[in-house]
Amino acid sequence: MPTGPSLETIRAAHERIRPHIHRTPVFTSRSLDELAGANLFFKCENLQKTGSFKIRGATNAVFSLNDEEARRGVVTHSSGNHAAALAHAARARGIPAWIVMPANSPMAKRKAVERYGGQITLCEPTLAARETAARDLIERTGAVMIHPYNDERVIAGQATAAVELLDQAPDLDFVLAPVSGGGLLSGTAIAAKCLRPQIRVVGCEPANADDAFRSLQAGRILPPEKTDTMADGLRATLCELTFAILRERVDEIALVSEEGIVEAMRSLWERLKLVVEASGAVPAAPAFERRIGAHSAAGRMAGSGQAEGKRVGIILSGGNLDLANLPFK
Amino acid sequence: MPTGPSLETIRAAHERIRPHIHRTPVFTSRSLDELAGANLFFKCENLQKTGSFKIRGATNAVFSLNDEEARRGVVTHSSGNHAAALAHAARARGIPAWIVMPANSPMAKRKAVERYGGQITLCEPTLAARETAARDLIERTGAVMIHPYNDERVIAGQATAAVELLDQAPDLDFVLAPVSGGGLLSGTAIAAKCLRPQIRVVGCEPANADDAFRSLQAGRILPPEKTDTMADGLRATLCELTFAILRERVDEIALVSEEGIVEAMRSLWERLKLVVEASGAVPAAPAFERRIGAHSAAGRMAGSGQAEGKRVGIILSGGNLDLANLPFK
Repeated sequence: MPTGPSLETIRAAHERIRPHIHRTPVFTSRSLDELAGANLFFKCENLQKTGSFKIRGATNAVFSLNDEEARRGVVTHSSGNHAAALAHAARARGIPAWIVMPANSPMAKRKAVERYGGQITLCEPTLAARETAARDLIERTGAVMIHPYNDERVIAGQATAAVELLDQAPDLDFVLAPVSGGGLLSGTAIAAKCLRPQIRVVGCEPANADDAFRSLQAGRILPPEKTDTMADGLRATLCELTFAILRERVDEIALVSEEGIVEAMRSLWERLKLVVEASGAVPAAPAFERRIGAHSAAGRMAGSGQAEGKRVGIILSGGNLDLANLPFK
Repeated sequence: MPTGPSLETIRAAHERIRPHIHRTPVFTSRSLDELAGANLFFKCENLQKTGSFKIRGATNAVFSLNDEEARRGVVTHSSGNHAAALAHAARARGIPAWIVMPANSPMAKRKAVERYGGQITLCEPTLAARETAARDLIERTGAVMIHPYNDERVIAGQATAAVELLDQAPDLDFVLAPVSGGGLLSGTAIAAKCLRPQIRVVGCEPANADDAFRSLQAGRILPPEKTDTMADGLRATLCELTFAILRERVDEIALVSEEGIVEAMRSLWERLKLVVEASGAVPAAPAFERRIGAHSAAGRMAGSGQAEGKRVGIILSGGNLDLANLPFK
């Protein structure tokens, strides 16, 4: 039996979260199609409530709790969008959310957590410090941990973006999503392959934080060698759950340079007039650079063929960033 | 009989241009509603083809020409969005477009004209130099001048944005649009007052280029005293045609500070995740600052009442700007 939530579970998640999320629009652009040599369909999760897809998984997790669990509240550690999403979801259910954030999180993301009523605990920017702070909170409050991706309820929620995309843009040949901890890509891969088995699923990752690429090549989870990417949402690593799902369902990991991220952001801002954060622009880069399929020969990932003339769905995962610190020169 | 195109003419323009333009979406935001204390409906002309509403008027003018006129091509002088729009409209009809642009036009706007096949003549950044260069082109080519706003066909085209807005967001109490030469505001006022006579029409203008405000107070067109605003699309002055329409139909001119423009842009970018140029953000500023109606006591413009709790349509007129030169700090 395949790993992760089933399509039935994903459909139930969609019904559960529908009152609390936007069905985000799908944008197209003739000039970006010319750039890519393909027909691109941009799923605008930057226009989602809280500014990212993360509200889908967080809301499904929060509304899946029974009343007794929910009463004690929820806790998580996150550098950003999952934090705001969990705060929003908790407020929607009327329960408290405790959020552990590294002290170097972007100010825009901290403000968002506060706006939705989340209670922030700042910590050192290391995984160990985050986990310790979260454990302390759980001991003190009895709150339930909602991990940003190591959670089938979260993955089922994230999968609903692809369910909508395939409905809004039928007959896609490819679907591209960013990969970090693997929650969005896992959900995307399960939903897309269930609904359209012939679709090619491409995870997109900064070359400067390429642990998913290397892990899938090696056949085991490798620790990150580096995470010095401007895509601050893509510095996490796979867990056993997401690793197993990606091994089964993902056809290719495309690596993206830092320059490629800036160029993709610029093209999206200039042509679509959309504010997309660096992490959210990552899956657009391989399409704009006509490199889908280019990584397939390098290792274990099966060749997915070129995307020329094909229909390509791209999940623009978020739009939260500090306007005072933009990469355009 | 009232000045300017009738609703029937506007509806005919809408039919004429429909195959060539987007019906742009209307965005809403709970957090911006809280900021404004009103229900805001943003008509996203920044998502329009060529990145601004100008394609509506230009396309209507170009497709209103008879075949013999059209064959010789069209010419205009414009610092930006009308230029790109006319180039796009001419290409759609398969005729040449000669565009006179001041040499200090934003690079993004020059590139857009080139992308749509317009042939650019650069000139000194004065009205006299622009008019001379355009006259030379007309003598040389026999092309037809399409003025950016002193043209009923153009005004009828611009009016179609408000027609769509009132269909997408019924029962509006106010509609806000920027004013420069007055083409968009004239069309907006005619369409809005015909379709919904009780609506209040508010023109929004940079305080640093306040000639429309002063002219309407004085009862005659006054020359600009200054045009040192970051809203580079709002430096033109009214003509007799637009002045007459605005006198008849506009309830209020709201002036906007340069700081107010930056703050409005920032709020639109952060909350709606939309790239809006300075000129396009101008009509959002008085709503965010809860100043609609505030100018009514100052002079000839009739009091329009406060907008608190009301339904307010805002035309975000464009999204073209140089990303390398953004005002956010």
